Amino acid sequence: MIKISFPDQSVREYPEGVSGLDIAQSLSHQLAKEVLAITVNNQLMDVTRPITTDASVKLHKWDDVEGKYAFWHSSAHLMAEALQALYPGMKFGIGPAIENGFYYDVDPGDGVVMKETDLAAVEAKMLELARQKNSFTRKDISKADALAYFQTKNDGYKLELINDLEDGTITLYEQGSFTDLCRGPHLPGTEPIKAVKLLSIAGAYWRGDEKRKQLTRIYGISFPKQKMLDEYLVLLEEAKKRDHRKIGKELELFTFSSSVGQGLPLWLPKGAALRGRLEDFLKKIQRQYDYEQVITPHIGQKELYVTSGHYAKYGKDSFQPINTPAEGEEFLLKPMNCPHHCEIYKFKPRSYKDLPIRYAEFGTVYRYEQSGELHGLTRVRGFTQDDAHIFCRPDQLKDEFKKVIDIVLYIFKTLDFANFTTQVSLRDPLNQEKYIGSEENWIKAESAIIEACEEKGLETIVETGEAAFYGPKLDFMVKDALGRKWQLGTIQVDYNLPERFELEYVGADNQKHRPVMIHRAPFGSMERFVAVLIEHTAGKFPLWLTPEQCVVLPISEKFNDYAEKVLKLLNNSDIRAVIDDRNEKIGKKIRDNELKRIPYLLIVGEKEMENGEISVRKQGDGDKGSMTVNSFVELINQEVATLLGEV
Amino acid sequence: MIKISFPDQSVREYPEGVSGLDIAQSLSHQLAKEVLAITVNNQLMDVTRPITTDASVKLHKWDDVEGKYAFWHSSAHLMAEALQALYPGMKFGIGPAIENGFYYDVDPGDGVVMKETDLAAVEAKMLELARQKNSFTRKDISKADALAYFQTKNDGYKLELINDLEDGTITLYEQGSFTDLCRGPHLPGTEPIKAVKLLSIAGAYWRGDEKRKQLTRIYGISFPKQKMLDEYLVLLEEAKKRDHRKIGKELELFTFSSSVGQGLPLWLPKGAALRGRLEDFLKKIQRQYDYEQVITPHIGQKELYVTSGHYAKYGKDSFQPINTPAEGEEFLLKPMNCPHHCEIYKFKPRSYKDLPIRYAEFGTVYRYEQSGELHGLTRVRGFTQDDAHIFCRPDQLKDEFKKVIDIVLYIFKTLDFANFTTQVSLRDPLNQEKYIGSEENWIKAESAIIEACEEKGLETIVETGEAAFYGPKLDFMVKDALGRKWQLGTIQVDYNLPERFELEYVGADNQKHRPVMIHRAPFGSMERFVAVLIEHTAGKFPLWLTPEQCVVLPISEKFNDYAEKVLKLLNNSDIRAVIDDRNEKIGKKIRDNELKRIPYLLIVGEKEMENGEISVRKQGDGDKGSMTVNSFVELINQEVATLLGEV
Repeated sequence: MIKISFPDQSVREYPEGVSGLDIAQSLSHQLAKEVLAITVNNQLMDVTRPITTDASVKLHKWDDVEGKYAFWHSSAHLMAEALQALYPGMKFGIGPAIENGFYYDVDPGDGVVMKETDLAAVEAKMLELARQKNSFTRKDISKADALAYFQTKNDGYKLELINDLEDGTITLYEQGSFTDLCRGPHLPGTEPIKAVKLLSIAGAYWRGDEKRKQLTRIYGISFPKQKMLDEYLVLLEEAKKRDHRKIGKELELFTFSSSVGQGLPLWLPKGAALRGRLEDFLKKIQRQYDYEQVITPHIGQKELYVTSGHYAKYGKDSFQPINTPAEGEEFLLKPMNCPHHCEIYKFKPRSYKDLPIRYAEFGTVYRYEQSGELHGLTRVRGFTQDDAHIFCRPDQLKDEFKKVIDIVLYIFKTLDFANFTTQVSLRDPLNQEKYIGSEENWIKAESAIIEACEEKGLETIVETGEAAFYGPKLDFMVKDALGRKWQLGTIQVDYNLPERFELEYVGADNQKHRPVMIHRAPFGSMERFVAVLIEHTAGKFPLWLTPEQCVVLPISEKFNDYAEKVLKLLNNSDIRAVIDDRNEKIGKKIRDNELKRIPYLLIVGEKEMENGEISVRKQGDGDKGSMTVNSFVELINQEVATLLGEV
Repeated sequence: MIKISFPDQSVREYPEGVSGLDIAQSLSHQLAKEVLAITVNNQLMDVTRPITTDASVKLHKWDDVEGKYAFWHSSAHLMAEALQALYPGMKFGIGPAIENGFYYDVDPGDGVVMKETDLAAVEAKMLELARQKNSFTRKDISKADALAYFQTKNDGYKLELINDLEDGTITLYEQGSFTDLCRGPHLPGTEPIKAVKLLSIAGAYWRGDEKRKQLTRIYGISFPKQKMLDEYLVLLEEAKKRDHRKIGKELELFTFSSSVGQGLPLWLPKGAALRGRLEDFLKKIQRQYDYEQVITPHIGQKELYVTSGHYAKYGKDSFQPINTPAEGEEFLLKPMNCPHHCEIYKFKPRSYKDLPIRYAEFGTVYRYEQSGELHGLTRVRGFTQDDAHIFCRPDQLKDEFKKVIDIVLYIFKTLDFANFTTQVSLRDPLNQEKYIGSEENWIKAESAIIEACEEKGLETIVETGEAAFYGPKLDFMVKDALGRKWQLGTIQVDYNLPERFELEYVGADNQKHRPVMIHRAPFGSMERFVAVLIEHTAGKFPLWLTPEQCVVLPISEKFNDYAEKVLKLLNNSDIRAVIDDRNEKIGKKIRDNELKRIPYLLIVGEKEMENGEISVRKQGDGDKGSMTVNSFVELINQEVATLLGEV
């Protein structure tokens, strides 16, 4: 018998050679039907593989990333089987699971071109094969045998992959008539794959090398239920409409220029103004919590990042050093603001009475990303963190942490991200040597975070072993209107940088002490946050944030002058207003502007001009009646104050 | 006879070989007494040298830079003569005139150390020698003779300098017992040097090479009248007190860190806040003039600056390119914001109706300066320009130029720089091939600037030949409280970048046209402007700008709680207040705080607490009586509004 321990710390005995499926069956019939993969001693495996030693296990269903991974990886093999049946002679590159679904890179053979319209037939074939309920069978095989097998199939791609592998590490997976070189894991069989959608076709160089052959990459996704696929496709359609790159362009918020460089956003006037309002919003709340703004340069001497440790960690894969002529200096684009803030801390001696010190900066940092990884504003090479560093005494840590939580919660609430989760990342208790800082400090910091979260009523997931080597942290993941998760704010405790920069304060005991640092960025970065906000709101920003708060619509050209007067009055009262004085019927103007994302339509005609008023329509909320411009300004200011929680 | 033409375009005939002194004498006896140097056909010369061909000349008195240059250069020789007399065996390196005075690098010989206390004797000797009224005599000499002469004096420094010269270019100047290798020009004689002050001693490597011998550099200054020296020394003392580096440190506005790098300012909280207020001030006035803020990255692809021409012009002597790993890209730190703004202009097609477009950005740019050239905030390697680029049609140029002038004048007035001069820089009409852009456009642009200045009532100095190759410009030079001139704002017309970036708009004629660009920066840069403002105000910033507007002074500890309450009320009303609750007598607290730069002192004791009031003292303006906090807030807001010209 062997001992199997479960995540809830319970332990059961099973005969040697028991499989994940057997274990699931022993627990519940339903679980056995739903289990898709198993983690055995930190290794993800097929649920059909025998377990031969004592082990800690975790069974994965659809809701786990690991379950989906096995499901989609098996679906990739199923697609290959279908393709092989429909396109004899097709050769296969690699076919992994990805974040949402799977793909396979295939070589259809000379002269054969696959089109999107061909995909329906492949989907049908996949479902037909799935209904055969074939098992996925794993085979350990020698390198020689593997080479011999794929030589018979004349498959140069697989042969090349095998040649790069070591003997003894090679496995094949077989289902129905298809056999693939593969590490697994896979589902027990094809049966659970009930719904399939092949999404798109793209070109992809073999092994990512543009000098080699371009293969055909087929993207797909699959689900255990048709309803889940239907929902996913609706979500996908909605997500496309909300794509921040699309809306950002429509609303003229930002752009990119191939001359300036990939991944380097240019903020257009409306985007820069929106970002400015977000920054002002943050600055205001930070001022209330006694943060002080600082401004630091975008470069620093290489030595600064050697001191901080960033160079050792990122230097080689980053933007390379900047040399100066003649003087032999080396600078780096700053990847983080913390080293600069440490230098500001050091500019004069500090006493225990001076702490906590809270330095905030909207600091633009530059980090190299491969061009293939870049994506709109969510993955860029230059971005502005809503950064702050709090230098405090150990006894102030919990209080400071709570205050940061307050700020983050206020921000999420104001920006309508009610749906969020939090994760506390702690040390791995079995692996303490990889963390820096004293045992005493770690205990203090971890309990400070946990207590702070409790006292703030946060329901947190606690993950041991997920802490940074320099300290524990708290991460915020928001769910957007489509239920998609985004990692936003982070609060991290740091014992490392105070040590590396030799930061000090003189205590009440007249001795020198090290302060603790808290890194925090509620938004993460302005770029990422604006992207998430666009996708969350579909570009319908809250009234206080939106580029245009109202549009003045003269009923006919006769009222253009009056409309201009209204516009001026609004602008003078800091209301962001535009005018639509096109020579169009008012009905059309209203319809056109209702399609836009402007919250208020202000209609002016004969009656309004006579009474010195405007007729106010709120998008999605209908007619608000006539009022003076002053009353409308008051209305908007009132609404904004309510949104910002100021009344 | 030869024809001599004068700056006022008049022409007179003189015998061949006439000297500058003769010409001055022919014009007035007084002028002959005051003339110090002469420019003959763009070459600066001794006034005693014969002129042998037709020439255009300009006579220089003390008020001209050229006059001072000759005066101080001659003073350097006079100091050398004095040193030679007092320190036999001393050897001489180089001794030029500088912006304020002169220096000489000397080698006193082994074991001889010169101290500041030795300088009085040198000054006395200089004045004694000056009273001998010796002439400066110029000698053209062959290289061989020059070498022979300095060999007799065993002067290795001069021998090394001569070895680097070409035969036929070598001249010596002699006065009294001192002869120097020198290009000149010099005064006719030592007589005008009536007042001398040797200011300091420093070390300086021979030829700036740290591997070579360290010489002794003696700095001095001299004047034609003792009164001028006295005034200069008072000014120097006052300038030292106002040094922005000193005050910036005292007020904790900014700092530098050798770890971050030289010339890269770190803005401390109070400095960042002050800079923020200046930026907000500018943003507000710019919003009134329909500028739009944009935000662009701090790097761009090298190609971008090849396109703009900046790379060809500055590339080699700048921060070197930043490479990316693997992808072979090259980026540069941006030296200017204009290329980025051109790319934003290009992000969509433009019509004549869209123009003018005005993009503003507080854009941080990086330009390499040798470390020896760096100075506080006035000469840095990274600075933030209060930049904007206006893209307009040629017919809009004059109007746009006038609006920019309005902004600059409003800023100078509000910041109390009443004393400024302006210079219009036009093409050199004799050298038109070095300018780009059509004749028609140049005529339009130059007359637009001149007319704009006239219509705005600016008294401008017009300098032909001083335009940039891409367009004419207008520069603003302010005089600070000590009468020192600082170049601040600049407005430049540019035909070059629209051409290089192929910027276009579709005209009313449905054809494509090129817009004109205006570059403008009223402050120049935030760093430089804050430095000038500190030196101008000695750190006593205007009420709306100053870091601390008032300090609350409890009469004794009994009133600390009430003082805290007052402080909170003030902060809640956005008044920048601090508290001095030290356990000191109120008299001492008042005296201490009067020495600081805080405009208002608010005293609270028994009476004030009872009445819920504060006693207000304005620095330099005495007692303002008791009032409620609300009344005081109103008083401050009123004063700020008046200062900003808002009432």
